[in-house]
Amino acid sequence: MKTRTVVAFFIAALLMTVSLVAYGADDSLKVKNIGSFYVGGHEITLSELPVYNDIFTQGGPVRKVDPNGSFETGQMYVQYVQLKNPKAKYPILLWHGGGLSGATWETKPDGNPGWQMFFLKAGYNVYVSDAVERGRSSWSRYPEIYKSNPIFRTKKESWESFRIGPTYDDDPAKRIPYSGGLFPAESFDQFMKSAIPRWTTNNQATQEAYDKLVQTVGPSVIVVHSQSGAFGERAVLNAPEKVKAVVLLEPSGAPDPTKENLALIKNIPHLYIWGDNIDKYPTWPKYYANVARYRDALIKTGVPVTWIELPKMGIKGNSHMLMMDKNSDQIAEIVQKWLESQKIMK
Amino acid sequence: MKTRTVVAFFIAALLMTVSLVAYGADDSLKVKNIGSFYVGGHEITLSELPVYNDIFTQGGPVRKVDPNGSFETGQMYVQYVQLKNPKAKYPILLWHGGGLSGATWETKPDGNPGWQMFFLKAGYNVYVSDAVERGRSSWSRYPEIYKSNPIFRTKKESWESFRIGPTYDDDPAKRIPYSGGLFPAESFDQFMKSAIPRWTTNNQATQEAYDKLVQTVGPSVIVVHSQSGAFGERAVLNAPEKVKAVVLLEPSGAPDPTKENLALIKNIPHLYIWGDNIDKYPTWPKYYANVARYRDALIKTGVPVTWIELPKMGIKGNSHMLMMDKNSDQIAEIVQKWLESQKIMK
Repeated sequence: MKTRTVVAFFIAALLMTVSLVAYGADDSLKVKNIGSFYVGGHEITLSELPVYNDIFTQGGPVRKVDPNGSFETGQMYVQYVQLKNPKAKYPILLWHGGGLSGATWETKPDGNPGWQMFFLKAGYNVYVSDAVERGRSSWSRYPEIYKSNPIFRTKKESWESFRIGPTYDDDPAKRIPYSGGLFPAESFDQFMKSAIPRWTTNNQATQEAYDKLVQTVGPSVIVVHSQSGAFGERAVLNAPEKVKAVVLLEPSGAPDPTKENLALIKNIPHLYIWGDNIDKYPTWPKYYANVARYRDALIKTGVPVTWIELPKMGIKGNSHMLMMDKNSDQIAEIVQKWLESQKIMK
Repeated sequence: MKTRTVVAFFIAALLMTVSLVAYGADDSLKVKNIGSFYVGGHEITLSELPVYNDIFTQGGPVRKVDPNGSFETGQMYVQYVQLKNPKAKYPILLWHGGGLSGATWETKPDGNPGWQMFFLKAGYNVYVSDAVERGRSSWSRYPEIYKSNPIFRTKKESWESFRIGPTYDDDPAKRIPYSGGLFPAESFDQFMKSAIPRWTTNNQATQEAYDKLVQTVGPSVIVVHSQSGAFGERAVLNAPEKVKAVVLLEPSGAPDPTKENLALIKNIPHLYIWGDNIDKYPTWPKYYANVARYRDALIKTGVPVTWIELPKMGIKGNSHMLMMDKNSDQIAEIVQKWLESQKIMK
């Protein structure tokens, strides 16, 4: 080998080294840290409830149970994945909808990657939380602490209200999805394993925990879905200096715009995304109208609003569970391109 | 530069490349995939419960609630982090104890890294599950589906039964931890935010889900704590061809050895670890005696058993929550060295 050839090869090897170090030899994520924490909540003390006996563990002895005492209530669980070299200026916070948990954003019911992985690969530090009373956030005794009974959403109501299809049946073969529907209907029972009971009386605690999360994480992008839509709008109003952009996937509620000082959030860009068949389930036109009223007030105030109805873009068949639909990556890319246009990337 | 020098430099550069690619230029994790799935569970249908009205979302309309219908019950949530280049032959499954969730294994209440990160850094694919009825696994209506009432462990019972200290008080300044105790007592209220209600009547569903997890993941190492000790022992008996080693942190129960064919698990190495002050809370000597009886039967059968009582090794002050104590890394290293000795690493 002549010197010139060796030197050329050497330079090529060095360039390859730099390339390998900078971009990785593969598509794996370079992760700095994975962890979790709890925000919010407070102590509450119960007294004068009856004492009883129980066995707690297989093969274990009988133990006395005294339910009286102190507990934590109102806390929220948050799990994060932080990248070694994030490409986004701010982390992204993923807030799930009603009767669900943070699992909403992870692997989809059909086994394909969800939005947690999408936004990690796009270069964000991703924070997935379980709303107060759901999942790892835990829940409290009722009616002593929570002031209502839990609600368990049925498969039928989920199938219909999430707009997977017009007709549910316990026999999967007899279920009718919407024509061209993009929810992986064959994985519906698997999806329903992620359903979590909910209460209707914990909105204040939930909002406080979300607000505390924003203060804890600092400047961030918030992505909300369905029930967390109203919490997300309120979180923006409560911390306009922290929220750099908000993405609202089919929010099921919004604050009353006549009671808010929307000028406070004049610089916070809002992206709304709606799926298909909104008019096919009775609550959705009502939710939509509430949110559209808020949107109109935002626009009137000068808040930058992008309002996407996917069918009007030619993207048809999306259910309420946009992040689980077969084209979830396509929807995520719309979100990502919009975030890029808001200068969220470094 | 002479040819020989260039060639030597070239080889050095190539070696550096190999080194950088193999080990990374930093201490970040190379993660192939982060995801989750549900195992186990089945459909259950309720009927003839009363219908009522409720408001589901801030600013939303009144909705009729019909609790009758079909639900999933008995499923278990499992979250995994898979490395690009695992150094262990098998993934490690982390099973939490009673009244808690998979958050047990993540960041500790004092904010320091827990065992999930320890074993990721040690080169394992790590699977953290929430037991049936806990956390993201969700829970079902009682008494219609679950056949008992939930139990909410008080702060006082947790402080005392987890052997953090002899004396609990709602005033943190008046709580007395054990002298030399290693649980981060100043973070106790934070820890209690991770407490999750439990039932006493779901053992069969829980065992079935754990067994299904082992079948789903395949050959693996299982690490169990407290209540999951009995589930872990049973999982070993149910899948001796899949479980390559089992680590039992203060298991609170064990099968009846006179009723089991322990010869089936003759080749499965067992590591037991116990913390300090076992004799200071009345249930622990009973649990310990149950487990020691099972251990004796294992040893008699020829099962490889390592039985560690940390105080006898000179490691004093550990609570029941070994993976959250200030020396959690030290305990994890004991586990890791033992796993290395069992030829679990590549």
